[in-house]
Amino acid sequence: MDQYEVERLKINFKTLEHFENFREYGIQELSMKEDLQDNIVENDSESPFYGVYFGNKLVARMSLYRIDAKYDRYFDPPQDYFELWKLEVLPGFQGKGIGKVMVDFAKSEGLPVKTNARQRSDDFWTKQGFEPVTYDPARDRGENTYVWFPKGVGEQK
Amino acid sequence: MDQYEVERLKINFKTLEHFENFREYGIQELSMKEDLQDNIVENDSESPFYGVYFGNKLVARMSLYRIDAKYDRYFDPPQDYFELWKLEVLPGFQGKGIGKVMVDFAKSEGLPVKTNARQRSDDFWTKQGFEPVTYDPARDRGENTYVWFPKGVGEQK
Repeated sequence: MDQYEVERLKINFKTLEHFENFREYGIQELSMKEDLQDNIVENDSESPFYGVYFGNKLVARMSLYRIDAKYDRYFDPPQDYFELWKLEVLPGFQGKGIGKVMVDFAKSEGLPVKTNARQRSDDFWTKQGFEPVTYDPARDRGENTYVWFPKGVGEQK
Repeated sequence: MDQYEVERLKINFKTLEHFENFREYGIQELSMKEDLQDNIVENDSESPFYGVYFGNKLVARMSLYRIDAKYDRYFDPPQDYFELWKLEVLPGFQGKGIGKVMVDFAKSEGLPVKTNARQRSDDFWTKQGFEPVTYDPARDRGENTYVWFPKGVGEQK
């Protein structure tokens, strides 16, 4: 599967046009476009998005936010971790291991990773080595939180 | 559309069986089932879920969490508000106004309502009188937040 490489996406009109192909498209993307049009962000500045290209086509993306240890309510010992959002592989490119390549990239820094497994994707996340958290109604409020623990890290109780 | 009535759902094995028909099913539901099996929660205790029955079949559901004013980062003046999650109408019952009945119920307390509009449902939320927030990367981190303002309430800047 090593033919697929994950790249950090630059904010430019080409990237934003690619984003329109994804189901999870909304005010974040529209706001990025406006900021670019109004020169609030520079062309080709860095984004929280990472993706995989097939030729010139963006076929998968996700966002990764590094959360500061002081907000950590999931891991023991408390530490910086990544929130993984909007992982999506375009139809026609699914089942080729691209999702796995993306998730492996997120793990590669050695920090814990947290995601919200949507629409019965639990099996996918389990296969990637993630575990469901012990559900806490006050903290999780309906979120379907799966986490990945690097060595030496456990669940915060 | 008044033939559909929204009810607060009780936690019991029947409700949990109904939940299996919905796409957004995960550790929250599994945890509710375990708590019931282990007598940690009583049969027929109240849940954060509301739904619409058609005969004996649960055809729509959502969860509503009341968030305390001290955590409010969306509304001005800051106040208690509802987070609306997991709104879902089963295929075969869509396009009948059930989603609107559910959202109207959420508004009926007169508190602001916040949701995360998933998978290009922006048009639905706009039709229900919701507005996209001004996107704040630090607060929203990829969430597609739509809010409903009762009279006299505006956006927190």
